[in-house]
Amino acid sequence: MKRSQYAVIGLGRFGSSLAKELIQLGYEVLGIDKSEEAVDEMSEVLTHVVAADATDEEVLRSLGIRNIDCAIVAIGDDIQSSILAAILLKDLGVKQVVAKALSELHGKVLQKLGVDRVIFPERDMGIRVAHQLVSPNLLDYIELSDEYTIAELSVPKRLSGRTLKELDPRAKFGCSVVAINKRTSVIIAPTAADTLDERDIMVVIGTNQQIESFENEVSR
Amino acid sequence: MKRSQYAVIGLGRFGSSLAKELIQLGYEVLGIDKSEEAVDEMSEVLTHVVAADATDEEVLRSLGIRNIDCAIVAIGDDIQSSILAAILLKDLGVKQVVAKALSELHGKVLQKLGVDRVIFPERDMGIRVAHQLVSPNLLDYIELSDEYTIAELSVPKRLSGRTLKELDPRAKFGCSVVAINKRTSVIIAPTAADTLDERDIMVVIGTNQQIESFENEVSR
Amino acid sequence: MKRSQYAVIGLGRFGSSLAKELIQLGYEVLGIDKSEEAVDEMSEVLTHVVAADATDEEVLRSLGIRNIDCAIVAIGDDIQSSILAAILLKDLGVKQVVAKALSELHGKVLQKLGVDRVIFPERDMGIRVAHQLVSPNLLDYIELSDEYTIAELSVPKRLSGRTLKELDPRAKFGCSVVAINKRTSVIIAPTAADTLDERDIMVVIGTNQQIESFENEVSR
Amino acid sequence: MKRSQYAVIGLGRFGSSLAKELIQLGYEVLGIDKSEEAVDEMSEVLTHVVAADATDEEVLRSLGIRNIDCAIVAIGDDIQSSILAAILLKDLGVKQVVAKALSELHGKVLQKLGVDRVIFPERDMGIRVAHQLVSPNLLDYIELSDEYTIAELSVPKRLSGRTLKELDPRAKFGCSVVAINKRTSVIIAPTAADTLDERDIMVVIGTNQQIESFENEVSR
Amino acid sequence: MKRSQYAVIGLGRFGSSLAKELIQLGYEVLGIDKSEEAVDEMSEVLTHVVAADATDEEVLRSLGIRNIDCAIVAIGDDIQSSILAAILLKDLGVKQVVAKALSELHGKVLQKLGVDRVIFPERDMGIRVAHQLVSPNLLDYIELSDEYTIAELSVPKRLSGRTLKELDPRAKFGCSVVAINKRTSVIIAPTAADTLDERDIMVVIGTNQQIESFENEVSR
Amino acid sequence: MKRSQYAVIGLGRFGSSLAKELIQLGYEVLGIDKSEEAVDEMSEVLTHVVAADATDEEVLRSLGIRNIDCAIVAIGDDIQSSILAAILLKDLGVKQVVAKALSELHGKVLQKLGVDRVIFPERDMGIRVAHQLVSPNLLDYIELSDEYTIAELSVPKRLSGRTLKELDPRAKFGCSVVAINKRTSVIIAPTAADTLDERDIMVVIGTNQQIESFENEVSR
Amino acid sequence: MKRSQYAVIGLGRFGSSLAKELIQLGYEVLGIDKSEEAVDEMSEVLTHVVAADATDEEVLRSLGIRNIDCAIVAIGDDIQSSILAAILLKDLGVKQVVAKALSELHGKVLQKLGVDRVIFPERDMGIRVAHQLVSPNLLDYIELSDEYTIAELSVPKRLSGRTLKELDPRAKFGCSVVAINKRTSVIIAPTAADTLDERDIMVVIGTNQQIESFENEVSR
Amino acid sequence: MKRSQYAVIGLGRFGSSLAKELIQLGYEVLGIDKSEEAVDEMSEVLTHVVAADATDEEVLRSLGIRNIDCAIVAIGDDIQSSILAAILLKDLGVKQVVAKALSELHGKVLQKLGVDRVIFPERDMGIRVAHQLVSPNLLDYIELSDEYTIAELSVPKRLSGRTLKELDPRAKFGCSVVAINKRTSVIIAPTAADTLDERDIMVVIGTNQQIESFENEVSR
Repeated sequence: MKRSQYAVIGLGRFGSSLAKELIQLGYEVLGIDKSEEAVDEMSEVLTHVVAADATDEEVLRSLGIRNIDCAIVAIGDDIQSSILAAILLKDLGVKQVVAKALSELHGKVLQKLGVDRVIFPERDMGIRVAHQLVSPNLLDYIELSDEYTIAELSVPKRLSGRTLKELDPRAKFGCSVVAINKRTSVIIAPTAADTLDERDIMVVIGTNQQIESFENEVSR
Repeated sequence: MKRSQYAVIGLGRFGSSLAKELIQLGYEVLGIDKSEEAVDEMSEVLTHVVAADATDEEVLRSLGIRNIDCAIVAIGDDIQSSILAAILLKDLGVKQVVAKALSELHGKVLQKLGVDRVIFPERDMGIRVAHQLVSPNLLDYIELSDEYTIAELSVPKRLSGRTLKELDPRAKFGCSVVAINKRTSVIIAPTAADTLDERDIMVVIGTNQQIESFENEVSR
Repeated sequence: MKRSQYAVIGLGRFGSSLAKELIQLGYEVLGIDKSEEAVDEMSEVLTHVVAADATDEEVLRSLGIRNIDCAIVAIGDDIQSSILAAILLKDLGVKQVVAKALSELHGKVLQKLGVDRVIFPERDMGIRVAHQLVSPNLLDYIELSDEYTIAELSVPKRLSGRTLKELDPRAKFGCSVVAINKRTSVIIAPTAADTLDERDIMVVIGTNQQIESFENEVSR
Repeated sequence: MKRSQYAVIGLGRFGSSLAKELIQLGYEVLGIDKSEEAVDEMSEVLTHVVAADATDEEVLRSLGIRNIDCAIVAIGDDIQSSILAAILLKDLGVKQVVAKALSELHGKVLQKLGVDRVIFPERDMGIRVAHQLVSPNLLDYIELSDEYTIAELSVPKRLSGRTLKELDPRAKFGCSVVAINKRTSVIIAPTAADTLDERDIMVVIGTNQQIESFENEVSR
Repeated sequence: MKRSQYAVIGLGRFGSSLAKELIQLGYEVLGIDKSEEAVDEMSEVLTHVVAADATDEEVLRSLGIRNIDCAIVAIGDDIQSSILAAILLKDLGVKQVVAKALSELHGKVLQKLGVDRVIFPERDMGIRVAHQLVSPNLLDYIELSDEYTIAELSVPKRLSGRTLKELDPRAKFGCSVVAINKRTSVIIAPTAADTLDERDIMVVIGTNQQIESFENEVSR
Repeated sequence: MKRSQYAVIGLGRFGSSLAKELIQLGYEVLGIDKSEEAVDEMSEVLTHVVAADATDEEVLRSLGIRNIDCAIVAIGDDIQSSILAAILLKDLGVKQVVAKALSELHGKVLQKLGVDRVIFPERDMGIRVAHQLVSPNLLDYIELSDEYTIAELSVPKRLSGRTLKELDPRAKFGCSVVAINKRTSVIIAPTAADTLDERDIMVVIGTNQQIESFENEVSR
Repeated sequence: MKRSQYAVIGLGRFGSSLAKELIQLGYEVLGIDKSEEAVDEMSEVLTHVVAADATDEEVLRSLGIRNIDCAIVAIGDDIQSSILAAILLKDLGVKQVVAKALSELHGKVLQKLGVDRVIFPERDMGIRVAHQLVSPNLLDYIELSDEYTIAELSVPKRLSGRTLKELDPRAKFGCSVVAINKRTSVIIAPTAADTLDERDIMVVIGTNQQIESFENEVSR
Repeated sequence: MKRSQYAVIGLGRFGSSLAKELIQLGYEVLGIDKSEEAVDEMSEVLTHVVAADATDEEVLRSLGIRNIDCAIVAIGDDIQSSILAAILLKDLGVKQVVAKALSELHGKVLQKLGVDRVIFPERDMGIRVAHQLVSPNLLDYIELSDEYTIAELSVPKRLSGRTLKELDPRAKFGCSVVAINKRTSVIIAPTAADTLDERDIMVVIGTNQQIESFENEVSR
């Protein structure tokens, strides 16, 4: 099966990081940016990089953009260019167009234009970092639903040597430890007899409130 | 126990999202930005917002910054201001200083200056979005270690009505389903008899390779 | 019956002319422009004029924009503001939104966003002036269809004193003279006996080719 | 007979639309603009396009401007260049010089300098659009005199199947229907027996008041 | 008899010198300049000074410009403002409008607009200074016609004590000495017996060639 | 005898006029200006023109400036460059350095630096034009001393056909007519019998007051 | 005796440091700078600080500058302002005018204008730092003449415990140790028996070569 | 022994003076500046000069910066570049990094980043010039400690012919004259019998107060 081909429009901090990771994951990536400087910096990293204006239909056509499977409009600060590039990419037949929005209103425009997926990276990252700041032991988390979350909690010194049984989060807080990352190995579906060590990381599932209470107990 | 107080320096997209989420989580937040406009927009959202130059020691002092528990330097594009604000905050005795870096070199400077935590939100978000793009059913994920990942996979129509037993990911791919989000409820530690429906979300734990294989099977 | 209320966003040459004519026709017009200067110039002409940013939802709300029957986005050179203002106006429930497009691509975006009518005043005026230039006696015209046109032709000295019978455009060119504007009066459905005088204006109906041949004969 | 040759100075939205239409009508057009970018865009459309300063006499001479039959100064926003180009074109012997004015005062200067025709495209288009907005069935119109107008009115559903006799505009409103555009054909000088269908377009002649009353009746 | 009233538009180096000299000569002068700074500097010198835009009809009207006998448009570097101010002043009925031209083309426009007198101060001064440079004893001169000139020549040491008879310019060069400025007094129509002293100034009349030859002899 | 060589630094309106007149008078002129555009315009007029920075000693040396007899610093608006160029020219041994001053203070600096002659062209021209404006028949004049002036007065229609005897300026006003320019010829030292015609120009010598009285009589 | 009064024009890094040190030494200092910001920063440090243009004679007069004993023109980067301020200060009768030069040419102009002392702080500091860099033990120095220098040398560990007799710089290198700074005290005119300790500082006098040789021996 | 190699980053007034002096002292110097112009000016003076961005790691590597013994960051006004260049130079292994600070805060950052020596040339020069201004006979000085100073005092006319015995500074003021610079020679450790002449320079050592009293006596 032929692997997907990606195009990333706008090679700022977000766009270049995304493009590099796609290369890392084994895909071909075409990078486009207005600035020669940004293009030079990525020229040895991506499959193909071009200094071009992505709001010019002829330019996009000549780059064979219609053969791209997924184009990501990651333009930094120019709402107009973002909108015009997005509609051109849809018109030219790119299968999937993803675009970064700079504001709620910008996001709404992109959606009306038929962009397949609108992302708000800075907003989302702001939320994620806020959670990590207020819970010192919370390393990362996924919101399963409005109510349920999976969280990665580091084990503090105080709990070193304790078994899950002693801690008993299910009984006390209602949430379950579904894995323990013990640095050298990962215990999946740990039993009550499994012991925690300092710097182990617990993967916990439960409601937001359950996890918050458990995290408070852990951080106490 | 008194709740922590936060200061967010720089109220751009990332900074303002972070500040709003901290408020949402119930904390007091002092926002500081050079631009009157940015300050106006946040004036009804945050506890206290000031248009000020965060590289001016007198300004920070007069704002009582030393009583802040954690200050986040989220300045958008001005490396000099970011560096000067960071060193001032440390000098003034702020317990925890977190700063957003715009480049590797900037990050290195911040670390040498004793900043407690350096974050690269655009870079991290670029990586996260890249993973989601290449795996259409991957909704979100946490990297437990270099090897292990927890991933949220959506259930496609094709698998609707199948039981976990039929799918048997542990036998076939080596990874475990630790939860199923069924929209109206979440099944934690599901049994082999649990049935999948379209749009359910499976939470899977395993090595990167196991999850990639399973995701490929799911997306087939 | 209550007369419609209009809002004109952008008071440049086109927008201010449109707004003034609406006032002339007896309607109430709210004018909005970013520039204090533009607003000052129209302040005694329009019903209400405001210096405001039309891409700010709060601003539009506070102006009671939802009670406007028809809003015309006549922003001069700023595609981004034009797009954001247009989507806001639709969202806020303005019954009819008309927007001026600066390019084909801009026009396409406006249409996708649900704008009720997209106009290209400079393009249309360019076409109209081109026709007038190439036909010295053509004063104005309406394209009825791709094939048929009504044209206003001035009568040159050479034809002064001639009757319609002598000229006989229907027999010779296939087109009909449906009116003659004789400066002091207008003869509707003139007869073959009606005489032409220099500087009279004939209103002619016919196919493009018929009218071009007749115009060539007249201009000979 | 040799066809006229045109020069268009200033290839903005108005100028380029005008130039393209002249080409469409079969004439040779020389385009001149200061900006290389504007020139590039028109290079394959016009007979000849040059990036040059039209206020430099030597430049105009070397382009052979004296052989041009009609030059249109369509410069966008630079009153000084417009004035200097206009006087140079007159001095160099161009037979007809047409210039776009940006304001009443600018127009007055152009006239005093002997420009053959001064046009105000944005102002005129503003007026035209205003009329179309207030009369939903008014598609286009020509002002024959201060009093008389020819208007193109669309036939609403409500009048479908009615004969002109039933409608009887001449008796009821004083104005005459001189043509009916029935999409597949055009009936010139329709009789009382001719039937109207939805989406037909009537061409009506009369005083402004007569037409307004009739239009109100039609739109009722 | 009421003395004339002057307005000077543009208070740069030329305009302010002109305005000051008019005051010196006993006239009332209204000064107008866009810049507050230029206005402040002249506020105690002129009868009335205003910071205003002289291309705005309302402004000129409100200043009572129609009562001015002579308006001088001395705007420094802005051809557009110079042209618009000049036509407005003529339109508003100022009896005499004088304008400074920045180039030949600008001068031509001003003349076509009916400006009563167009002056080229820098050009004229350049010519005047050139003549003074090449003839070290030439202090000043007036060109009577293309052929004849009156010149002011200083008397060098070498000629001190000589009588006009000895010098005899009329016989030797064809030109006449019509006056001798002897610092303490002026001898008009000097006789052959009058003696020259060092630093006396002769006023000589003759053809350009006669005066050049005489000046060469004097400077020898 | 070798003719003098001139250098003109700064080819604005004043400098280029001066340089052209020197060429006209038969001298060699080296023109120097920072701007390529100014240099291009003069390249076919002057002996040698260079786009160079006249405040760079090496540049001036390489142009052989020390062989120049007289350098005129005619820099338009940059006091710093004017001062630095002037001192460099003196240091490099240019025999005569003339410099245009933009203000009294600038003039004082130039004098202290040893510049041989400081000129104020705009100021002087302002004064000259002021005099011409207030005396409609005064065409030009030379101030012989604080008290005495030679003036060129045009003869109005009213005086046509009158003899000098009838006018008798010496008896009535104390001033003498030393020449009459009769368009086709010039009468030097006219007699009482010489008749004046309309548009003749009288050259009059006298005290300022005498000439003002006579001019008033003439203009009456 | 009344203490001298100083004025410092230009409160950049050099000017403000100079002004502060003068205050420290007990003098009254008037500070003048164009920038409000610079003035605000010094407002509580200097006797009197004013935001003003020091090239405006009226401004300087109104500040009573003629009563100042010494004015230092420390303007950062604006040669024109530096020159104009300097000549004004001299003209207004300031007893001593000191000015900072930005280049050799600038310095020459200042000298010609009669400035009492021209300083080149950045150039002098560059030279001083160069000497300190190449001689690691050289802390500071004074050039007594082209040949003789006094230098401050730090004593390295290697020489700790040695007496001056053992080191004998006069015999071996020809230079004398005139003082030893022993941190807690200073030995003036030390004897041969005095012992050196690590981190003592010797003050040595001799020819440049003698001191360089001795410094090399010390740094060995 | 191989001589040290220096790199100077930033070739403004301070940097270029420092670099030239290092060359003068016989060392090799690599100069780096962003501006082509600055580089051109130094190209014939330094060993090697490059127009480059010193905050780009690749650039510094390719210049072989790791072989440099001492790099001086003398960047004029750009705190960000100064900081980034300094950390890069340390990271790349330059043995000694010296950096110029523009403010106290900037200096603090440089120190935290491990810069070996932070200098404040303008501040230091300001202090030095202040001392020289207040003591007219003080030519130069070194601060040995907070208390002790060596100063160079010029001998005024009044003291000409006096012996050191008569002056007796040690007895009267407590300070010692350690050398007398007699223009043609330098007397080291002068005796009481040595005579002072006008314009001799005494080198005096003592406490600040002793020297100030002595200087006051000398300047009396």
